[in-house]
Amino acid sequence: MTATALSGTASALSGLDLAGTAVFAMSGALVAARARQNLVTFAFFAALTGVGGGTLRDLLIGAPVFWMHATAPLAVCLCTALLVWWTPHRLWPGRAIEWCDGLGLASYAAYGAAKALAFGIPWLPAVVMGVVTSCMGGIVRDILAGQPSIIMRPELYVTAAALAAGLYVGLAQCHVAPMLAGGCAVTFGFGLRGLALWKGLALPPYRD
Amino acid sequence: MTATALSGTASALSGLDLAGTAVFAMSGALVAARARQNLVTFAFFAALTGVGGGTLRDLLIGAPVFWMHATAPLAVCLCTALLVWWTPHRLWPGRAIEWCDGLGLASYAAYGAAKALAFGIPWLPAVVMGVVTSCMGGIVRDILAGQPSIIMRPELYVTAAALAAGLYVGLAQCHVAPMLAGGCAVTFGFGLRGLALWKGLALPPYRD
Amino acid sequence: MTATALSGTASALSGLDLAGTAVFAMSGALVAARARQNLVTFAFFAALTGVGGGTLRDLLIGAPVFWMHATAPLAVCLCTALLVWWTPHRLWPGRAIEWCDGLGLASYAAYGAAKALAFGIPWLPAVVMGVVTSCMGGIVRDILAGQPSIIMRPELYVTAAALAAGLYVGLAQCHVAPMLAGGCAVTFGFGLRGLALWKGLALPPYRD
Repeated sequence: MTATALSGTASALSGLDLAGTAVFAMSGALVAARARQNLVTFAFFAALTGVGGGTLRDLLIGAPVFWMHATAPLAVCLCTALLVWWTPHRLWPGRAIEWCDGLGLASYAAYGAAKALAFGIPWLPAVVMGVVTSCMGGIVRDILAGQPSIIMRPELYVTAAALAAGLYVGLAQCHVAPMLAGGCAVTFGFGLRGLALWKGLALPPYRD
Repeated sequence: MTATALSGTASALSGLDLAGTAVFAMSGALVAARARQNLVTFAFFAALTGVGGGTLRDLLIGAPVFWMHATAPLAVCLCTALLVWWTPHRLWPGRAIEWCDGLGLASYAAYGAAKALAFGIPWLPAVVMGVVTSCMGGIVRDILAGQPSIIMRPELYVTAAALAAGLYVGLAQCHVAPMLAGGCAVTFGFGLRGLALWKGLALPPYRD
Repeated sequence: MTATALSGTASALSGLDLAGTAVFAMSGALVAARARQNLVTFAFFAALTGVGGGTLRDLLIGAPVFWMHATAPLAVCLCTALLVWWTPHRLWPGRAIEWCDGLGLASYAAYGAAKALAFGIPWLPAVVMGVVTSCMGGIVRDILAGQPSIIMRPELYVTAAALAAGLYVGLAQCHVAPMLAGGCAVTFGFGLRGLALWKGLALPPYRD
């Protein structure tokens, strides 16, 4: 991929990145709200959850960490924390954390895979980049809050991330335009996670 | 900042760095002591807690990891582990872990912010660097020991780190000498954390 | 070490690396099996446990992350996950996870130390690289699964890793051939861990 194409893809998908950051930050702040934490802890959880996944992605693919030379990602996280702080808890629907997390999951899976491809990573590690990266935000949030990790829950979670990342990489290999491929990947990934939340959809568990 | 100024700042603040390493290492070794671990686990916890925060800082700002090309940080951690091993537990005051951790918190917050500024990171990520970095040592220690994370405790913790890091960055932007800015930042940050430990000072929690 | 020697050492030891990856992946998949997870979670745990330690090593020593530009490590992890999935649980001996983990521990400790030396890291950080790296796979696996960390268990664990890494570095400093040094290190490290598992061997715990 040439530098121009990379730049085009990157700008086309940067909206996806900020969207993922915002919704993960929201899910982090909601965990802080449930734990009755103070405003600084809200901001800490929002930032860590919001940029955690992308940070790991950038370290792994050898890119400069994205929020080190731009202020937008951190600003988005801090504003999200304030927004959650000021909104009465009962206005949030009961499973708001899960739905925010699901949208962030699909967005980050697609964007993570796209950025890995843009840095010359082969297809298999690129798909895994999307998956691992999109799951890390939620995982770090749960570990820090002392909750059971979201990936051990019965409904499809990692699978939805794998679908979004795999779909993006597959469509990109077929030269589909990045915006279209990203839109498809997010739609199907979030759709699958939504179905899992709504219907309790799950893959068959391991049996002896 | 020029290379000379960076080198001057770095040497002026390297004492702060080793002090932070030593007290975090001590808090790690004390956790191992409470869990009745053996000497090797003492060393493991001391090293991981002592250099964990600085390691994350260096990875994020793109600097070579500081203890990879110097022996002093690891040697400090191992000596601290031995010191704690040989000292009868009842000689340690009951809340020694918290006080050591608080001093390490303030030192690392100031030094982390200073190093980030020296690497050309803008002010907002530099403050966050100080905060996240100084909190990571304690967080990793608590996760590995299976304890509730220190950032979920009611007294001010992240706030004290934010005060130290923010104060350093603010004073540095006003061209205050690094030693003076660092001294102020550590004093106020540790003072706030100390007040929190002593008086149970806390920010108001989230309420519906 | 010259580039040729590095290349020779690397190819001589790459078998050790894939062996460590496979057994750690197996221990990750077995944890997923115990938790009655689905196939995608099997693959996630196998990959994270299998490449987690080496990933941290490469980030710390400043090397490109090994599984980003090669497909073999990930393929080994995914095949291992499938193998565990298809094998009835009762065919696995009760402590299979611990034994696999012990072999991975010794292999990764030796290989991690060797790679660090090859990148010009001094002997003390190189030994620590072997130890921390080889322990990280199991630690991340346990944290994600919500289990007590393996390093808090009474039998020798970190000690066995330290023996393997220290032996490799010591023999390499005496110019012993890499294959021989690696063989010795893995044999003694795994032997010590095996003794610990079999006899409950442990260092004396901390006493007041």
